[in-house]
Amino acid sequence: MEKGLLLYEGKAKQIYATDQEDVVLISYKDSATAFNGEKKAELAGKGKLNNEISSRIFLKLKELDIPSHFIERLSEYEQLVKRVSIVPLEVVTRNKAAGSLSKRLGLEEGTPFDQPLVEFYYKNDELQDPLLTEEHIQLMKIASVEEVAEMKRQALRINELLVSVFAEMDIDLIDFKIEFGRDKDGSILLADEISPDTCRLWDQKTGRKLDKDVFRRDLGNLVEVYKEVLQRLGGNQHV
Amino acid sequence: MEKGLLLYEGKAKQIYATDQEDVVLISYKDSATAFNGEKKAELAGKGKLNNEISSRIFLKLKELDIPSHFIERLSEYEQLVKRVSIVPLEVVTRNKAAGSLSKRLGLEEGTPFDQPLVEFYYKNDELQDPLLTEEHIQLMKIASVEEVAEMKRQALRINELLVSVFAEMDIDLIDFKIEFGRDKDGSILLADEISPDTCRLWDQKTGRKLDKDVFRRDLGNLVEVYKEVLQRLGGNQHV
Repeated sequence: MEKGLLLYEGKAKQIYATDQEDVVLISYKDSATAFNGEKKAELAGKGKLNNEISSRIFLKLKELDIPSHFIERLSEYEQLVKRVSIVPLEVVTRNKAAGSLSKRLGLEEGTPFDQPLVEFYYKNDELQDPLLTEEHIQLMKIASVEEVAEMKRQALRINELLVSVFAEMDIDLIDFKIEFGRDKDGSILLADEISPDTCRLWDQKTGRKLDKDVFRRDLGNLVEVYKEVLQRLGGNQHV
Repeated sequence: MEKGLLLYEGKAKQIYATDQEDVVLISYKDSATAFNGEKKAELAGKGKLNNEISSRIFLKLKELDIPSHFIERLSEYEQLVKRVSIVPLEVVTRNKAAGSLSKRLGLEEGTPFDQPLVEFYYKNDELQDPLLTEEHIQLMKIASVEEVAEMKRQALRINELLVSVFAEMDIDLIDFKIEFGRDKDGSILLADEISPDTCRLWDQKTGRKLDKDVFRRDLGNLVEVYKEVLQRLGGNQHV
């Protein structure tokens, strides 16, 4: 597999072409960013931890019949995925109030919901990723009614599975963000990553935060925390 | 009709009890506020203009079979309305992009929509009236699924009627905000006011703004503009 041209660079990952038309290579960066890029740091080892954690989670989801763009982990920092065209939505599923939702709606962090909440945010740094209703998504022609329903259905199913995956690790899945892409046939496919960068993970016993809030809120050493998540996932913590 | 105790004071109106259990008196204030109360002014005559404009619009809607809390205009600044329990939602219906929506979604002001857009905002000054999805409304138990559907249905019907009422006055109805209440039987009833404080009204020929944006954006004399709207509605402009 040849690593080709850099196709896209985001805040936490680079995407490269490969010698296969339908396959791209993701290279995870050691960058940590928060608050729409206002807070930044380079944290040695973060990229490889997220690469391994996300690979393990996508493999677990595959075993549970959730397809995704993930093909295989190639190296410490790299993985191969199917090429998709990303739908510019951040699909956030929440089991308890936290973060921006708590602030926006005045709900105490940790307030449980009767049922999981799925929200769509417009992936647009300049506009600071505004919340969208389903009608906004139609009006802006970002996705069809059917695609929105499909993303919601998949998000809820993925939530159900991830809640139990993390519960086995004594972790409470508070919320998580996923992105979807359209594959070459136009089907909606889970893409991007699932890692402590994109989930809120609270230790079930102590309530300790095991996710990017450690960086956002200066709660300790993010790399050590991510190592712990990888270890609980059955991975090698001595990375 | 006896004017009783002050029950509630908002930014633009006071609500008083009357000697009838199910009837309250609204007294319009001359205050103009914008940006969640950050910009304020007292504009002599604004209150009586809005009282007369809103009364005329609610009467027109009644003729068109849209019930509301409105009973009658009592005096220059006062009207009688049915007592309702206000649902804490600002229901915004939009025909073209403008104001906060343009900013949030990066849409040029005046961009027309394929179909009218209905949005719900949480009426909460402290939280700065955040946008809510229908799922947020359920989660926060603000209104039932059926009530949300009913408010949306009424908003779209009211929009259809107001668009033609204003078109007859050579005015383009860009968007408007309404509020609903629950009456003593728990039915959803149009409440609050409909005035240039709560609508975006653009002159169809010149594009001139005939609404509170004149105050928000320092575009001229708000009271003169509201007089013009009242005149076009067939009212006495020499108020």
